[in-house]
Amino acid sequence: MIEPKLSTMLAFIYTDARLTSDVLQTCLQKAVDLSFNMVVVDGDTSTNDTVLLIATGESPSAIDIEDFQNALNFVCVELAKMIARDGEGATKMMEVTVSGARNHEEAIKAAKAVVRSPLVKAAFFGADPNWGRIVTAVGYSGAFVDPQVLSLALSDGKGTSIVLVEKGLLKNVSVDRLREQRLSEIMNGTEISILVDLGVGAAAATAWGCDLTDGYVRINAEYTT
Amino acid sequence: MIEPKLSTMLAFIYTDARLTSDVLQTCLQKAVDLSFNMVVVDGDTSTNDTVLLIATGESPSAIDIEDFQNALNFVCVELAKMIARDGEGATKMMEVTVSGARNHEEAIKAAKAVVRSPLVKAAFFGADPNWGRIVTAVGYSGAFVDPQVLSLALSDGKGTSIVLVEKGLLKNVSVDRLREQRLSEIMNGTEISILVDLGVGAAAATAWGCDLTDGYVRINAEYTT
Repeated sequence: MIEPKLSTMLAFIYTDARLTSDVLQTCLQKAVDLSFNMVVVDGDTSTNDTVLLIATGESPSAIDIEDFQNALNFVCVELAKMIARDGEGATKMMEVTVSGARNHEEAIKAAKAVVRSPLVKAAFFGADPNWGRIVTAVGYSGAFVDPQVLSLALSDGKGTSIVLVEKGLLKNVSVDRLREQRLSEIMNGTEISILVDLGVGAAAATAWGCDLTDGYVRINAEYTT
Repeated sequence: MIEPKLSTMLAFIYTDARLTSDVLQTCLQKAVDLSFNMVVVDGDTSTNDTVLLIATGESPSAIDIEDFQNALNFVCVELAKMIARDGEGATKMMEVTVSGARNHEEAIKAAKAVVRSPLVKAAFFGADPNWGRIVTAVGYSGAFVDPQVLSLALSDGKGTSIVLVEKGLLKNVSVDRLREQRLSEIMNGTEISILVDLGVGAAAATAWGCDLTDGYVRINAEYTT
């Protein structure tokens, strides 16, 4: 869970836009589905999470609904990433984007499987770019996977990325000193992007989580004492 | 995973019974479903688990198929429990039995959710009889739950058990020195049974797993170095 000592997640978002509660609810559901609902800290569902969107209606200007949706998405995704960053005992934030899926549901399944995997999370704590564990999680996620066309890259989210698997072929990073050095820098950063291209469709999804550390175990094994 | 340094799970079972491979396959599928397939060490599916049942057919006597099935179930369950006990970094084996479910599928879902929950597993590492985390996992498992009729007990599997929740009512263990002492002994044992009675049907299932420890994190974060 996110903060077992205090409460579960409570988010309050305010806007001065003049929009009806029906429109706000529709926009919020869309934004929540691609932000808060894509956070996995440990896979244990929290008990009373709440996201409230409150509009005062005080803005004099008319609002473009697409602009509003984009702005709301941005706010919700930023808040979601803060939760992942603040995961119990976390030392690293992990962003997993699965693209090239057959459909949106399968992209979500695959992204969440990777970000939930204890083995992937523990490997990232140890700065180990363990492509096998990532591909395994994608494989058991329930998404359709063709190993011959799957690609995988790791990125620092700031422009540097290293391809580990390209259309089913493993790239040996250790033969190139510069690439090995860059990969090591990515793995030792505090935010790491995992980019999986399933190569079998056009759907994509992004999920956020964090590494699994001895800190997580300590917090959750000893918090009552 | 079970033994990432060596291999995944490989089980070989031998019998001298005279049975056709069709019959053996049917018996083995039944036995595997209630043993190996009910083990969850960390939720990461291993990649090439194998269970082989080999019959030499050398026994001169005819065999009762029910006796054979029971014996095979026993062997598979004992092997499954050994795997849970041997989980990476594990200090405790957890056996979760969910009874009173509407159907077998829901009993399996609920038992596996409890044994997979990182929060339950970490609590048990800390010898914390955290009923809330167990009930939460049952609640999000997908099984039908009526909080008013759910009961929960913890047991050492050797005859001592303490009821924590009885038909939706929380039993305050701390008011009774003897019960508190017994509960503490159960929680500090190396094998703990979690007994959940959903009270809404007649189906039951048992799953096995282990606690989540700093040892698990260390093994899986550092095994490449």
